[in-house]
Amino acid sequence: MGPTVAQRLIADHLVSGELTPGEEIGLRIDQTLTQDATGTLVMQELEAIGLDRARTEVSVQYVDHNLLQADEKNAEDHAFLRSACRRYGLWFSKPGNGVSHPTHMQRFGIPGKSMVGSDSHTCAAGSLGMLAMGVGGLEAAMAIAGEPVYLRMPQIWGIRLTGELPPWVSAKDVVLEMLRRHGVKGGLNRIIEYHGPGVETLSAMDRHVIANMGAELGATTTVFPSDDAVREFLRAEDREDDFTELVAEPDARYDVTDEIDLSTLEPLIARPSSPDNVVPVREVAGTDVSQVVIGSSANPGLRDFAVAAQLVRGRQVSDAVSFDVNPSSREIFADLTKMGDTFDLISAGARIHQAGCMGCIGMGQAPAVGHNSLRTFPRNFPGRSGTREDSVWLCSPETAAASALAGVITDPRELAERLGVSPDVRLPEKASVNTDMLVPPLPPEQARQEELVKGPNISSLPDFPPLPDRIEGPVLLKVGDNISTDEISPAGARALPFRSNVPKLAEFTFTQIDETYPERARGAGETGHVVVGGDNYGQGSSREHAAITPRHLGLKAVLAKSFARIHWQNLANFGILPLEFVDPADYDRVDDGDSLVLDELREQLPGGTELTVHNATKNESFPVCHRLSERQVEAVLAGGRIPLLARS
Amino acid sequence: MGPTVAQRLIADHLVSGELTPGEEIGLRIDQTLTQDATGTLVMQELEAIGLDRARTEVSVQYVDHNLLQADEKNAEDHAFLRSACRRYGLWFSKPGNGVSHPTHMQRFGIPGKSMVGSDSHTCAAGSLGMLAMGVGGLEAAMAIAGEPVYLRMPQIWGIRLTGELPPWVSAKDVVLEMLRRHGVKGGLNRIIEYHGPGVETLSAMDRHVIANMGAELGATTTVFPSDDAVREFLRAEDREDDFTELVAEPDARYDVTDEIDLSTLEPLIARPSSPDNVVPVREVAGTDVSQVVIGSSANPGLRDFAVAAQLVRGRQVSDAVSFDVNPSSREIFADLTKMGDTFDLISAGARIHQAGCMGCIGMGQAPAVGHNSLRTFPRNFPGRSGTREDSVWLCSPETAAASALAGVITDPRELAERLGVSPDVRLPEKASVNTDMLVPPLPPEQARQEELVKGPNISSLPDFPPLPDRIEGPVLLKVGDNISTDEISPAGARALPFRSNVPKLAEFTFTQIDETYPERARGAGETGHVVVGGDNYGQGSSREHAAITPRHLGLKAVLAKSFARIHWQNLANFGILPLEFVDPADYDRVDDGDSLVLDELREQLPGGTELTVHNATKNESFPVCHRLSERQVEAVLAGGRIPLLARS
Repeated sequence: MGPTVAQRLIADHLVSGELTPGEEIGLRIDQTLTQDATGTLVMQELEAIGLDRARTEVSVQYVDHNLLQADEKNAEDHAFLRSACRRYGLWFSKPGNGVSHPTHMQRFGIPGKSMVGSDSHTCAAGSLGMLAMGVGGLEAAMAIAGEPVYLRMPQIWGIRLTGELPPWVSAKDVVLEMLRRHGVKGGLNRIIEYHGPGVETLSAMDRHVIANMGAELGATTTVFPSDDAVREFLRAEDREDDFTELVAEPDARYDVTDEIDLSTLEPLIARPSSPDNVVPVREVAGTDVSQVVIGSSANPGLRDFAVAAQLVRGRQVSDAVSFDVNPSSREIFADLTKMGDTFDLISAGARIHQAGCMGCIGMGQAPAVGHNSLRTFPRNFPGRSGTREDSVWLCSPETAAASALAGVITDPRELAERLGVSPDVRLPEKASVNTDMLVPPLPPEQARQEELVKGPNISSLPDFPPLPDRIEGPVLLKVGDNISTDEISPAGARALPFRSNVPKLAEFTFTQIDETYPERARGAGETGHVVVGGDNYGQGSSREHAAITPRHLGLKAVLAKSFARIHWQNLANFGILPLEFVDPADYDRVDDGDSLVLDELREQLPGGTELTVHNATKNESFPVCHRLSERQVEAVLAGGRIPLLARS
Repeated sequence: MGPTVAQRLIADHLVSGELTPGEEIGLRIDQTLTQDATGTLVMQELEAIGLDRARTEVSVQYVDHNLLQADEKNAEDHAFLRSACRRYGLWFSKPGNGVSHPTHMQRFGIPGKSMVGSDSHTCAAGSLGMLAMGVGGLEAAMAIAGEPVYLRMPQIWGIRLTGELPPWVSAKDVVLEMLRRHGVKGGLNRIIEYHGPGVETLSAMDRHVIANMGAELGATTTVFPSDDAVREFLRAEDREDDFTELVAEPDARYDVTDEIDLSTLEPLIARPSSPDNVVPVREVAGTDVSQVVIGSSANPGLRDFAVAAQLVRGRQVSDAVSFDVNPSSREIFADLTKMGDTFDLISAGARIHQAGCMGCIGMGQAPAVGHNSLRTFPRNFPGRSGTREDSVWLCSPETAAASALAGVITDPRELAERLGVSPDVRLPEKASVNTDMLVPPLPPEQARQEELVKGPNISSLPDFPPLPDRIEGPVLLKVGDNISTDEISPAGARALPFRSNVPKLAEFTFTQIDETYPERARGAGETGHVVVGGDNYGQGSSREHAAITPRHLGLKAVLAKSFARIHWQNLANFGILPLEFVDPADYDRVDDGDSLVLDELREQLPGGTELTVHNATKNESFPVCHRLSERQVEAVLAGGRIPLLARS
């Protein structure tokens, strides 16, 4: 029994563990990708590690999220990121060069390579036969520093594709069909691997659309084989030398399976406000639309824009519709312009935006409340557009363009037939390759002379001292079940601008629950304090600020009934002890303000999973346990992974 | 002695008064222009007036300022403006169609017509031989309602142009030379009229550049003759039928005169942070630049973008520079794209932004603190870019593009010679005329059925109580010369979204100068307070929020050495008493916190132009004067023009 593509990729990068689903494996990482919204913290982490130079084959810092520059903070982030790339030997993709995922695919993607990225859609690179995963910022920083990435071996989910897509049905409809069938949790702890005869009917960029939105299925990642379509893509990008064939063995076996006959698909659309609220377009046809947006990493290909241009060419979008077109990369914008499509889109009434992510992450083009917005984006979670009570639908560029013309949701097959438009889009064989906005790493000697450029809003990461042998401190906060990372470190317009300034951001820690927490935490001082939680502590967004900011304020340990997985990992990464009540009933025996003592930690933690907590206020003790690996215990004792690495 | 162009335009529209400088005249208004940042208030005012249908020949509502849509408010404004156009019989220019001034010039400008616009750069239409003036929103609303516009007859300032501009020197350098010579107050109470043999060497769009920035000279407006260059412009726009010749009589006499020999000019640049800090580019050459922006109504022509493309074609802007290109109208963007220049700009590293004003009013592309930004914009007042301590320079597109390539401020003559670039730019004879984003007025019967669409952030206008007979209140703020409306009521991404919500916007009043002002103003309460200013108080943008928001906070009178025209009018329109020191030296005898008394206003104001201010703190008195007409006195006493109209 030969390996699947995913198994081969994992085997080729394995540094520890075995390919048994559920077992911890360590993987060597060839490439990294960071974007500006998460990248400033990653660069601060590299600084804290004391990295001399990136140890990956390729690490690229993209600037694609915060492009609007409503005040000086974004421009200062860009200047900081540029200087960090110069210092640490990373590539710097200038603002305006494009969204990380398609740009990386065009310039750096290589079949057979592994990659992590501090962006959940990093999985899009699976379109070229790469093993590419979205991770937290510190994991990305560690990978840049040459450390392996550890995860539980996922199941391999084989999706066999047969047939060929009908006219006016495209890759977006394939992944919408996956979401319709399996929902946003369907891919949890799985790698989705597409195979079968239908795969070869999809271009590499079509596969990008499908791999990208594997993130919406909750999958660890998505992989496609590397075949002639990949070779053709690389040839168009002047990089045929980077091609390697990578296909599953004929007798490969998948842990889970499903099948899609492409020829049976029709235009689909996700209703507000979840990517898995999928219905056929015809079922909602006629619904009023006041905004249509084409772009994002979920439909980034030249074809995606060209097919929209094909529909609107010589026509005008509805009076009532704002038609926003956001080229995904400079290269695609240049090609579109050379082909005449930019002219056609402008003439049809498009508002053309600088290449980047923009509206997809709520940076601009927010719709009016109660007005329907159709987007070729990957996500339509409530409020993500920037509008609190938004009404965002997800669809293909074909459906989007047809609906922009009609002013109501429209099946593109129906409109194209009525207007007599052909579905065939002719694309150039060679892309407008231009690498001038991708600034290469400096030579090492020159890089060592570079200084980090830190505007007034960019701090360094604070120092993280080692875990003391004895924690003796008050319970400053006792919370209930399902506390989310949003409640620990809030997002939103007040806090987010301080994403690169930990001391400032720390002022917001837990303030949604208790405004006095930051002040009381500072009052408790160096000896530290403890937070007590219920079940599923730290659910929601993966943001590592929810570990870093309380840590900065002196949090030493969290005692909870149970933890959400990513936040649990973030706590350990940043040297906060995540402990669980052995008897959940003990939760009720600890009160706000009680003084707790945990002693002889340097001996107890490596020795076993159980510890004793003494409640000095109530003069009684109870047992707690940790689920940390040896690796993690070492990191926590050192004060987190950053001081551990800095020390070694 | 025959009339000048300006005198002829005034005589043709005169409904009251005589053409004696200083006398109040009333003018019939043929066209109006409103933009979205000021237009929502104008539409609220039309609603308050109870207008049935616009009474002008043409009234157009543009959406060009608030295009970023960081949340739902902008999209809701757009929907509100669209509905108001449908209701009141206005043209609606969709977002993305472009900046009002060049778009209006292309589609609606007609030599010999009069126009007011709720935007200070409305004067740009003087390029076509129109009498076009920026006014407050309420004046624009009144004009839409068919009311005359009243002003003091300005002096006519004849600027005789001779010679021809050298290569790499362009229209922007002409108006920068005017600013260098005469400063931001040089045009106060004047109409600038360009004449002489040099005029015919300038295209209509070159004249737009010069007329536009007449606003920065403080002029009432600027006029050019309507000659062959205007005919050629209208022919390219498929509107040759709209051409009328309009030139000064050979024996016309100007009240004030000056002369510029175009052939002696060189590339000029305004240093931070005033448009009149003008020096030759060569004097500051070599200064680091990290941002270059091309666009805005101050350099809106196809030529302005094409000459930049000419310089950067086949080259790449400096690594360290963000090169932002913001086409000024859809038509120009379409032409640029057809000509291949969009491709060249993208290839050279440009970030291309949707057609609009954007960065010019601090909506996006804010630079980093301490980084130099070169812009082809009209204004560089402190903080206008969206960055508090900004460093913005104003220059021609030639200088901007040359500096983007070099990464330092660069004289384009020097760079072009070094690179061997020709200054000749070939433009198409016919523009890409496309009116599909300009939605025409509905027929009256249909319009009357339309409802205004008001989102949750669109308030009603607050009540404006009458002026009390006695003002007794503290000086809450004493400021220096040239305070701009940006400093009184800031634009930018934080404040602008609340432009349709006066109580909310009031929280930002004067906060760029003193963050405590709104709180202290509310503390001073109903009896009110006073602001003391120096010369040219209220220069810059026409926004009437700079009168309405301090009024809402209790401002009763402004004492200044002198006022900028539009703001002075806005103060009177909204019931704030604008008073001037009879002896400017008295400015020094009033301090922050002094308690001032103005008594028996209902008797004194109609009785004469002079009043006595008693400084209760210092126990001394000094005289001030007002320049209000009878009409204006009546309005101020009533609490402003709206309560006056409501009462009648």
